[in-house]
Amino acid sequence: MDITNKIPVGVLGATGSVGQKFIELLSNHPWFEVVEVAASERSAGNLYKDAVNWILSSPIPERIANLKVKICVPDLDSKIVFSGLDSSVAGEIESDFAKKGYIVVSNSKNHRMDKDVPLLVPEINPSHLELIKTQNYNGGCIVTNPNCSTIGLVLALKPLHDNFGLVMVNAVTMQALSGAGYPGVSSLDIVDNVIPFISGEEGKLESEPLKILGELNSNEIVNTRIKISAQCNRVAVLDGHLECVQVKLKNKASEKDLIDAWQNFSSEPQKLNLPTAPLKPIYYFTEDKYPQPKIHRNLDKGMAVSVGRLRKDPLLDYKFIVLSHNTVRGAAGGAILCAELMISKGYIK
Amino acid sequence: MDITNKIPVGVLGATGSVGQKFIELLSNHPWFEVVEVAASERSAGNLYKDAVNWILSSPIPERIANLKVKICVPDLDSKIVFSGLDSSVAGEIESDFAKKGYIVVSNSKNHRMDKDVPLLVPEINPSHLELIKTQNYNGGCIVTNPNCSTIGLVLALKPLHDNFGLVMVNAVTMQALSGAGYPGVSSLDIVDNVIPFISGEEGKLESEPLKILGELNSNEIVNTRIKISAQCNRVAVLDGHLECVQVKLKNKASEKDLIDAWQNFSSEPQKLNLPTAPLKPIYYFTEDKYPQPKIHRNLDKGMAVSVGRLRKDPLLDYKFIVLSHNTVRGAAGGAILCAELMISKGYIK
Amino acid sequence: MDITNKIPVGVLGATGSVGQKFIELLSNHPWFEVVEVAASERSAGNLYKDAVNWILSSPIPERIANLKVKICVPDLDSKIVFSGLDSSVAGEIESDFAKKGYIVVSNSKNHRMDKDVPLLVPEINPSHLELIKTQNYNGGCIVTNPNCSTIGLVLALKPLHDNFGLVMVNAVTMQALSGAGYPGVSSLDIVDNVIPFISGEEGKLESEPLKILGELNSNEIVNTRIKISAQCNRVAVLDGHLECVQVKLKNKASEKDLIDAWQNFSSEPQKLNLPTAPLKPIYYFTEDKYPQPKIHRNLDKGMAVSVGRLRKDPLLDYKFIVLSHNTVRGAAGGAILCAELMISKGYIK
Amino acid sequence: MDITNKIPVGVLGATGSVGQKFIELLSNHPWFEVVEVAASERSAGNLYKDAVNWILSSPIPERIANLKVKICVPDLDSKIVFSGLDSSVAGEIESDFAKKGYIVVSNSKNHRMDKDVPLLVPEINPSHLELIKTQNYNGGCIVTNPNCSTIGLVLALKPLHDNFGLVMVNAVTMQALSGAGYPGVSSLDIVDNVIPFISGEEGKLESEPLKILGELNSNEIVNTRIKISAQCNRVAVLDGHLECVQVKLKNKASEKDLIDAWQNFSSEPQKLNLPTAPLKPIYYFTEDKYPQPKIHRNLDKGMAVSVGRLRKDPLLDYKFIVLSHNTVRGAAGGAILCAELMISKGYIK
Repeated sequence: MDITNKIPVGVLGATGSVGQKFIELLSNHPWFEVVEVAASERSAGNLYKDAVNWILSSPIPERIANLKVKICVPDLDSKIVFSGLDSSVAGEIESDFAKKGYIVVSNSKNHRMDKDVPLLVPEINPSHLELIKTQNYNGGCIVTNPNCSTIGLVLALKPLHDNFGLVMVNAVTMQALSGAGYPGVSSLDIVDNVIPFISGEEGKLESEPLKILGELNSNEIVNTRIKISAQCNRVAVLDGHLECVQVKLKNKASEKDLIDAWQNFSSEPQKLNLPTAPLKPIYYFTEDKYPQPKIHRNLDKGMAVSVGRLRKDPLLDYKFIVLSHNTVRGAAGGAILCAELMISKGYIK
Repeated sequence: MDITNKIPVGVLGATGSVGQKFIELLSNHPWFEVVEVAASERSAGNLYKDAVNWILSSPIPERIANLKVKICVPDLDSKIVFSGLDSSVAGEIESDFAKKGYIVVSNSKNHRMDKDVPLLVPEINPSHLELIKTQNYNGGCIVTNPNCSTIGLVLALKPLHDNFGLVMVNAVTMQALSGAGYPGVSSLDIVDNVIPFISGEEGKLESEPLKILGELNSNEIVNTRIKISAQCNRVAVLDGHLECVQVKLKNKASEKDLIDAWQNFSSEPQKLNLPTAPLKPIYYFTEDKYPQPKIHRNLDKGMAVSVGRLRKDPLLDYKFIVLSHNTVRGAAGGAILCAELMISKGYIK
Repeated sequence: MDITNKIPVGVLGATGSVGQKFIELLSNHPWFEVVEVAASERSAGNLYKDAVNWILSSPIPERIANLKVKICVPDLDSKIVFSGLDSSVAGEIESDFAKKGYIVVSNSKNHRMDKDVPLLVPEINPSHLELIKTQNYNGGCIVTNPNCSTIGLVLALKPLHDNFGLVMVNAVTMQALSGAGYPGVSSLDIVDNVIPFISGEEGKLESEPLKILGELNSNEIVNTRIKISAQCNRVAVLDGHLECVQVKLKNKASEKDLIDAWQNFSSEPQKLNLPTAPLKPIYYFTEDKYPQPKIHRNLDKGMAVSVGRLRKDPLLDYKFIVLSHNTVRGAAGGAILCAELMISKGYIK
Repeated sequence: MDITNKIPVGVLGATGSVGQKFIELLSNHPWFEVVEVAASERSAGNLYKDAVNWILSSPIPERIANLKVKICVPDLDSKIVFSGLDSSVAGEIESDFAKKGYIVVSNSKNHRMDKDVPLLVPEINPSHLELIKTQNYNGGCIVTNPNCSTIGLVLALKPLHDNFGLVMVNAVTMQALSGAGYPGVSSLDIVDNVIPFISGEEGKLESEPLKILGELNSNEIVNTRIKISAQCNRVAVLDGHLECVQVKLKNKASEKDLIDAWQNFSSEPQKLNLPTAPLKPIYYFTEDKYPQPKIHRNLDKGMAVSVGRLRKDPLLDYKFIVLSHNTVRGAAGGAILCAELMISKGYIK
């Protein structure tokens, strides 16, 4: 690919918290250049810097700051659009863009379970991209990124499923505040507190992995058969979802077998050397107290998953903990990696 | 009992964080009066107010403030002593006191698993007190209080075990900072973070319930047979341990059956109207987001356990959450309730 | 007063955070009984328990939970109404109530600076209540409570002003999250952060004390002449505003003089033994590290002000710190004390 | 300078929190290479990775991890040593090193006020380095870095002092937890709290700027004459000290004059293009709510000072806020910049 001419991309929902993260992560991207920012009618017409309540520590990239915000109709100067739209509007807008020939890479939940839409984690199910050929979008297409708490879990599960077969998975999450968007969780609800409920989250965590780990079979995904139970909590952490996981395996495996499976795991994005891919998708920590959100969430550009504390489980077979950065690997970064994979594999020409 | 003449009690480890909580909770106790405070040699000889780094929001009870701190040798003017000693010294000191005829009610872990020592939760296993008759302590005895994360869990489990039989229990905890004592957890380790490891905690949570829920059989406790798995985390909460629990039951039961079992649960301390007993040991909340540490930890004097979010579990039978105040019900308050039970049942004369 | 027949009162803005605090503090009030709860049209018609998103740890008082919420028009069955209305609507609604003969005790800022409206702190300027006789409200009246950061400061200043004369006051505040209402400050803005700006707050802190400490002179308040500078910050504290204060005095005074002035300070509410009055309005702490929000905010029912760290100041004369509970003394509790004073002094018959 | 051969340096107190920051910041330094790590006898003899309780999020630089820790005696293979020693031992050890010919760049307070020791902020008083010629250390020397809360303040003051003359300065700080080292502040003391006292801090903040802003006059520093008052608080922020500052100026100046003075400020380190120097020492923010610790502490590698909220002050002339990263600009990074200046100006050959 000729990187002197970057590929123009747009961001839908550009003023929201996921949209901001897209813009931050794309600001020095070697392949993509943000040329369009679109948001609600309230923001449209203003310069991005005036429309946005920028909440990230990095400053607004200067070129983006002075882009005029457009409304979210398929009339943008970029074939590829990243969607950080709120789920209350994402469904229809994304379909509209796809129908007009746009390639929509979405972080919203609306189309994730559509039969013809890949729920893509590039290290796990790159072959699912074939599904877009079955979409009826006049040359456009929709590709989705899983829920933020799903991605960390499913990346840690993938090598185990491949090597030993998963029968049961139990996950209890301690999720970061940024997962709720901005303003999201009131400070009065979380200082000196835990909120043991995140609306809709447990359902996603119990269902999305089945599709992601499923097999593509004559243009259809056959969900994998694992029993999953999830319990989701919100804790006073800015970024980084931590999950306590237990697994029951089909085949016998030692602790060393599991650790080896994680440490040796590498996949398409690493082979293709995609710009946003982590060098290693999974890092295993041997110290009892690691990984921790504050210390390890930014590992390998925030795109790696950290695993630790593997030990035998009295109920299932093993238990361990998983950490991943929810707005990088679990949202904008994950979606960008999807787009990189699509380009690298020739799905976008 | 003649409450015009309160029973003199002592506190071992009186300057530590558990010791302080004992003193706070005993300060207006209708039956007990703290007459002795004992601590390490470093503190001994000083007035309590000068020896202690008082960390509670209530002021030091004035009478206690001016007691002279003694060393922890069995030479105190109170037959009953509450022990908040550090486990590095508690084992021997508590034995020494018992041998000299003292009644030791301990929050330390050292003697919890001794065959002849009750691991007592007054609502659950009051009959285990009989064990002290088998102790060889010349009239003295040792009674212990379980680990702070155990108490909440086991109180929530008791009505289920009695009514439906427990086969498996899975618990993932989010534990408060006060559980680590003072200074305990460094602020640098917990602001914007979770620590997914508490040394020794998971082992206690997996073993103590078996003894507590066990049967007294010809002067021996026969542990109950439940498979328990625990994962313990430290979160940025001051007080109140929250636990995500899953259970597998022997007998079929509906959600209503479980909720009824919790709400109807009442036991010896309630019947005897013990001063520190909660009106109801267990409160069930129907709101999705409840219970929460900040809001419910002080329920019913901090002695009640709050349960919520009961729902079917894809792996075991049910999942739900449990909250209890770790330094009140889970430590000093629980131990005081033990002593009240002993007096009320005639074990202390 | 006949306390067997409590005085019926209403709460305007009853579902908001200040409104909730009114209801909590009035729930066992010896003189008042909440019989009316009024809020926006959205809430009106529903039971209070269904309309409110209750954020306090104490449960909703049962009798109030089942009151039907009314709209905020002067058609309520209680002569006295406490207003916790948002300032966007408080101005007009409060005037409407007063015009219809209601006694409005308001925590909102709208009428605070009206010439004929007392800005009342019962320990400081009880005589200002005479102002209501100049109001043209057909028998009704409006009395206001100062801003939450003003009350703590002005209570600490009052004994100094009386005894030594204040010339200059400098205040830098670290204010609690509850001061911003609910949901108020986003958790993403305050975990691991300080927000060095609170809209409008510095102006209030620089102006309100002048009126409160002013003299009533032929039915007009003559503001006192003190130069005040304020800087306001939001910190990750749930309740309790802490302020670093410096003062320049007219008359020479030793550190002991100042401490004596604070400790000997007592006023009308104490003399009249009003139910919500603290035993002592001001407590002085000698430990370097005290007072602290978490430890001292609830002192004397949350109605006392804590002062500490008095020392000479290289620029003005003295510096010290002041702490007060912003939603109790600084809002609902302060307003209730105003109403108690009005009854006790015969302004309400 | 030949950067193919880096200059070997050592770190004293290498296992402490400041020592760790030195090692992190020096790990890819273009001029310096850490070849020696020294610490207390307890650590000596072990590999650095085994001796240290590493608390930073970046991993231990691999080469350093395997260095053997030495004791702090002047027998190291590096002429330059950075000292992050605890003040209980720093005084003597640093003198010992200097006497043996070592160049000691220290972050400890012990020698800061020595008459012949520069208290150096490279942008402010580079000429003070001449003082080391008056030291009697056999070719060795000691140069010190100011206290973490001093550096941010004094950098913001310097352009004002140069342009308009400072008469009075008032500073109230909200300081980060990392300033107290590790484990430092107990989590139980700071969650939901502010600690309004930091031992010794106010004295440093009131005295150090006088020396730093002083004039070198025939080999002596003549302190500048400014009246300074400081009040110091600890808040629940991980990194970044925020200060509310007021100034009284000798000469009249408009708000624009002050902002221009800050924005145009540039000095030796910028001219010399020192590797650790920020591009601009001071950034002025126009948004009311900025700067904030979480958002701006890492500005320009954590070496810049952020200023905002300039406004007229009713007592002195102006008030504004200042933010700086306390462990980078305020400690290790500041000290490294001192060493860079010494090399660049020929003080180290």
